[in-house]
Amino acid sequence: MARTSLVARFEQSITLNALRAYIAEFISTFFFVFAVVGSAMSSRNLMPNAALDPSCLVAVAVTSAFALSSAVFMAANISGGHVNPAVTFAMAIGGHISVPTALFYWISQMLASVLACILLKVVIIGQHIPTYTIAEEMTGFGASVMEGVVTFILVYAIYAAGDPRRGTFGAIGPLVIGLTAGANVLATGPFSGGSMNPACAFGSSIVAGTFKNQAAYWVGPLFGAAIAGLLYDNVVFPAQSAEVSDGVGV
Amino acid sequence: MARTSLVARFEQSITLNALRAYIAEFISTFFFVFAVVGSAMSSRNLMPNAALDPSCLVAVAVTSAFALSSAVFMAANISGGHVNPAVTFAMAIGGHISVPTALFYWISQMLASVLACILLKVVIIGQHIPTYTIAEEMTGFGASVMEGVVTFILVYAIYAAGDPRRGTFGAIGPLVIGLTAGANVLATGPFSGGSMNPACAFGSSIVAGTFKNQAAYWVGPLFGAAIAGLLYDNVVFPAQSAEVSDGVGV
Amino acid sequence: MARTSLVARFEQSITLNALRAYIAEFISTFFFVFAVVGSAMSSRNLMPNAALDPSCLVAVAVTSAFALSSAVFMAANISGGHVNPAVTFAMAIGGHISVPTALFYWISQMLASVLACILLKVVIIGQHIPTYTIAEEMTGFGASVMEGVVTFILVYAIYAAGDPRRGTFGAIGPLVIGLTAGANVLATGPFSGGSMNPACAFGSSIVAGTFKNQAAYWVGPLFGAAIAGLLYDNVVFPAQSAEVSDGVGV
Amino acid sequence: MARTSLVARFEQSITLNALRAYIAEFISTFFFVFAVVGSAMSSRNLMPNAALDPSCLVAVAVTSAFALSSAVFMAANISGGHVNPAVTFAMAIGGHISVPTALFYWISQMLASVLACILLKVVIIGQHIPTYTIAEEMTGFGASVMEGVVTFILVYAIYAAGDPRRGTFGAIGPLVIGLTAGANVLATGPFSGGSMNPACAFGSSIVAGTFKNQAAYWVGPLFGAAIAGLLYDNVVFPAQSAEVSDGVGV
Repeated sequence: MARTSLVARFEQSITLNALRAYIAEFISTFFFVFAVVGSAMSSRNLMPNAALDPSCLVAVAVTSAFALSSAVFMAANISGGHVNPAVTFAMAIGGHISVPTALFYWISQMLASVLACILLKVVIIGQHIPTYTIAEEMTGFGASVMEGVVTFILVYAIYAAGDPRRGTFGAIGPLVIGLTAGANVLATGPFSGGSMNPACAFGSSIVAGTFKNQAAYWVGPLFGAAIAGLLYDNVVFPAQSAEVSDGVGV
Repeated sequence: MARTSLVARFEQSITLNALRAYIAEFISTFFFVFAVVGSAMSSRNLMPNAALDPSCLVAVAVTSAFALSSAVFMAANISGGHVNPAVTFAMAIGGHISVPTALFYWISQMLASVLACILLKVVIIGQHIPTYTIAEEMTGFGASVMEGVVTFILVYAIYAAGDPRRGTFGAIGPLVIGLTAGANVLATGPFSGGSMNPACAFGSSIVAGTFKNQAAYWVGPLFGAAIAGLLYDNVVFPAQSAEVSDGVGV
Repeated sequence: MARTSLVARFEQSITLNALRAYIAEFISTFFFVFAVVGSAMSSRNLMPNAALDPSCLVAVAVTSAFALSSAVFMAANISGGHVNPAVTFAMAIGGHISVPTALFYWISQMLASVLACILLKVVIIGQHIPTYTIAEEMTGFGASVMEGVVTFILVYAIYAAGDPRRGTFGAIGPLVIGLTAGANVLATGPFSGGSMNPACAFGSSIVAGTFKNQAAYWVGPLFGAAIAGLLYDNVVFPAQSAEVSDGVGV
Repeated sequence: MARTSLVARFEQSITLNALRAYIAEFISTFFFVFAVVGSAMSSRNLMPNAALDPSCLVAVAVTSAFALSSAVFMAANISGGHVNPAVTFAMAIGGHISVPTALFYWISQMLASVLACILLKVVIIGQHIPTYTIAEEMTGFGASVMEGVVTFILVYAIYAAGDPRRGTFGAIGPLVIGLTAGANVLATGPFSGGSMNPACAFGSSIVAGTFKNQAAYWVGPLFGAAIAGLLYDNVVFPAQSAEVSDGVGV
């Protein structure tokens, strides 16, 4: 806390514990992307017009919910369980982690996502990696807004889940984060894709070799995440609010 | 507790903490309505006759379960996590919140629902907002009874989840509320719609521009919610029962 | 504890707290049967050959999982949350509740189930109530064995969930009970029906007016439940085992 | 701890508490295999080309998630809730259980799996037991790698769930294990089968009478599990890390 220069912060971000946090982020993000992209490939494999069937939407949404709950749980008490560059961005904006640490988190998440997609491409011969697409009836701006809104809700849920003032409910925090993601995919999947996670969009695009609409999966989520974090910390549940002093007093 | 005149109650309902509670209700209700109405639109988009496919029913029901669990969790320790005017009504009838506060909760919930539906209508170009409909084989009165019964069960679950006498199980309270909503949608979706939430019915009707059968989605749920609250507080788990004194004694 | 004659036990079973337990069992069983039978009707309504579609199986199984989790949760700390005559039977065999109390539980459960089916029949005009059926490739004896096996697993899970030696995991007990029921329905639904609950089979048969194969839904579950209870209490987790003394000692 | 010779270890593995652990593993594995294989048969029974329908994939994946959560919960505080020879293998490699105990765990798991498949074959007349198959577009080696990766993730989640340093989140550990399995099945089901469990692959193959590709369901999972255990214990969350001393200190 005493030394806060850029060099000091950088040094803190390469300690042994920090390296463990990057590994934890890597493993959790790898799992999340592997499961979500894999389930999209599974559904497509089972049905030629899978993108047009509600049970495929359920399959991908349930995968998102299950995998994100687990991924957050697995990394929670070492890296905080971000599993998502938008979450890391909000945490850095809000001052919860330093900028150098956030950059290493981003690198871990991006590498994990790319590796997960490469693995899927290598073992499943002859299938291409699916990328997020925007429905024809939507504009790119509309899709970016939609992704921003659902990422706002996801990050708001992550802040709520990580809040120590949550009391007994705190135990189900990682589940709530996963369920929020699942509900968001069910609501937006066939329209804007329901990514909420720039790493997932980036990894699948790199391996598929197409970056169409990639901006929508970065601008919307990063904006939505930052606003959610600032709103939670400063307006809805500010640290110096009456609830906290009650909690500390008792 | 000392000043209980209408003016005093009104003043209590516009304090800073009360305003935070309204924002929390607004965000949680916005998320819930966005997810539920969005998932109905997703399913319909994927399949022209979506209303006739069981996997669409599963999609909407799972969305209700996931989104309500999260919405209640996110608002639980600031506004109580009502996310539903029928719940607020029961709480006001039972004396758990004052009438002015209940009115502000209603306003927050209604505004959030309308805004969520407007957003969906704006970003998804060319689709109309779906509204709850009653199956042809049912009467309006039958649908109202059905909505009343499932809202009764939902509010009973909410009271059970919020009961501090629940012990270790208390941690999963928000999940149980969501699962109850999901089971109710699966049981009633194709018949009465499975709304259980007047705000959701109101918002989608306002934006769709049709108020057909709207009464059924208000009368049944408000009756069912009030009866559930009174029954729980006064008959099944009265505050002065033996269980409580045991709990207090130890 | 001092007076254990039949009269004394009967008197204990009509105290105010006992009456509250019967009401709690009634409400929870009503909800469970309403949701499970309702979801079977929903699926059938959506698709003429619903019994032949895997997404209908998922719909009914998810309903069973969600509704049983909630029903057990809602009644857990007043009646124990049996919601099932087979569970009550096992508890009576194992001496956890007295025989007169068990009889009143059965009456509550049966009445709740019949009422739930009557309500569904009245509000959904022109549909008959579905009953559990046995697949053509199975014998009645085979179906009874299958129902016995899945009820054995369900009751074993209920004993595990209610065991105070379970530690921190105890909080998710009601969820685990529901998930067990859901998995069992997915495994056995199209073969033996996946009832595991004589009250549910009884109520739907009474209202549908057919008692074909009813015996299979009583004999198997009651046997399976009793064996599970005795095995858990006396072999796998006996009350006087080393684990317990460790727990008490520390 | 004093006597660690092979004979002493063997003696420890046949005490009364050890026998109870084997029974607990037997019952939990029986339930898991019964549910997973049963749900594959249910789906196939409902639809001739079930293997080609996404809702069948959802059915089997949800069964895996629900059944593994429950199976782990039921056995957790007596045998540790392995329910899987690959998990037992990792625990033995990491020194968490002795080799003789691991062997008895394997025997219990194998017997339970075979018995569950025999029971399904006997009661469901005229259906053969389904076995895991590898998609045509994959090589046996690719399938083994894929099974290894998903078993790695599952065992990593099991280690995370069993870690006492997990804090309040610990309560949902068994759920997280189940959800991880469900997400993995959704990602890999139509490609490598999504077994992650040699006992399940072994039991179904024995009863079906075909051992095609059996090696892929042993080599991959055993490797993946061992690496996950070693990585978790020695790199990501080593017992002597700063987090632990903090925890012990306070």
